[in-house]
Amino acid sequence: MPGKLYGVGVGPGDPELITLKAKRILEEADCIAVPKTAAGRDSLALSIAEGLLGHRKEIIELQFPMSYDEKLLESSWNSAVASIKGKLDEDRNVAFVTLGDPTVYSTYMYVHKALGQYGYPVEIIPGITSFCASAARVGISLGENRETIAVIPSAYECGNLDDILNSFDNIVLMKISSKFLKLKEKLQELHLQDKAVVVSRCGLDGEMVERNINEVDENSLSYFTTMIIKKNGVG
Amino acid sequence: MPGKLYGVGVGPGDPELITLKAKRILEEADCIAVPKTAAGRDSLALSIAEGLLGHRKEIIELQFPMSYDEKLLESSWNSAVASIKGKLDEDRNVAFVTLGDPTVYSTYMYVHKALGQYGYPVEIIPGITSFCASAARVGISLGENRETIAVIPSAYECGNLDDILNSFDNIVLMKISSKFLKLKEKLQELHLQDKAVVVSRCGLDGEMVERNINEVDENSLSYFTTMIIKKNGVG
Repeated sequence: MPGKLYGVGVGPGDPELITLKAKRILEEADCIAVPKTAAGRDSLALSIAEGLLGHRKEIIELQFPMSYDEKLLESSWNSAVASIKGKLDEDRNVAFVTLGDPTVYSTYMYVHKALGQYGYPVEIIPGITSFCASAARVGISLGENRETIAVIPSAYECGNLDDILNSFDNIVLMKISSKFLKLKEKLQELHLQDKAVVVSRCGLDGEMVERNINEVDENSLSYFTTMIIKKNGVG
Repeated sequence: MPGKLYGVGVGPGDPELITLKAKRILEEADCIAVPKTAAGRDSLALSIAEGLLGHRKEIIELQFPMSYDEKLLESSWNSAVASIKGKLDEDRNVAFVTLGDPTVYSTYMYVHKALGQYGYPVEIIPGITSFCASAARVGISLGENRETIAVIPSAYECGNLDDILNSFDNIVLMKISSKFLKLKEKLQELHLQDKAVVVSRCGLDGEMVERNINEVDENSLSYFTTMIIKKNGVG
């Protein structure tokens, strides 16, 4: 019997926003797989989970460079899959920690699909998404009654963003830091500039909540910045 | 100092999908506010949280009839607000339990807004959404890379659903049971019938996962049924 792979959502930042199930899986796992953007860099997902791990866990560092170069990405996924496969073949269970929820824009899913296709047992443990935590922090709903919600990732090209901004009641824009100025212009154009709230590093050191987008300093925005646009107001 | 109101997301069904923070708040609260659709009916949110409550908690039952009659709804919200306000004025903390996440189509938000406006301290504790848990159960992502996600509530009128189905990569349709046949027709019309998965009662007794919508018996669908449509396939 090979080991099992768990994709564990550790939530957006506050270690108390880990679920009881994620806590149990992290405690029971033999190895913790940790995605990093480069060797030696800290992993935010690991730092959130750290207090739950005890001392004797083996840590497997996986490198996923921030890049759109498909060849580079493919080779990093392949070596991540190979590292985890090695542990599973030694009958060891592996918990792959991932920020937020594993099903929402997480690199984990590549590893999940590949190892699932090889026939290894795989399971996803849901986590609190950054957009739910951000809405909670601000005290607004993401959707009520008949309202629709759109979630738009950072990598999305702004092509038909106008249509989405016009037709949806509530729009979540994820990891907006590099696109903030463009978005600010777009919101002014569509008269939505006072319907937006920006949340940076929700639940982490240096958290920032700003309901006035003119007050946001685009140079100080963290990578972990979410914008929520709510047509009926952000309170 | 008045008491504090917490809106506590207890997740979609499995009590292990409650966060550590929600567990602590439920343990520490003086009163548990429980939304019910009618007097005497069981509360699913309470049954999920029950194992964490101990014995001496006061339970406040709040009735929120399933209705679109605005007068009836308003009067039920007003009496819910009054019941909770009474406890807060006695310096007691109240935890309002809500299925999934409080910011995603939850009745809790009315109470939150009203008591926040009266000046009472209020806080939202995020929960795992049913759509994240459903995607995890099926082993698919809700979004990867540049993909967009739309979340459409049960109460949504099907007006421009075609546009959304055409323009989004991934679409979550919540509480679809009464609309299943209409949706099935729509998916066939748009050649999306093999891109959908239906998940009922995720993490609860009687859970059902079906990737072939022709196999779904619309009469047996629970109220807690989610459909996920994924253009690049549901595996």
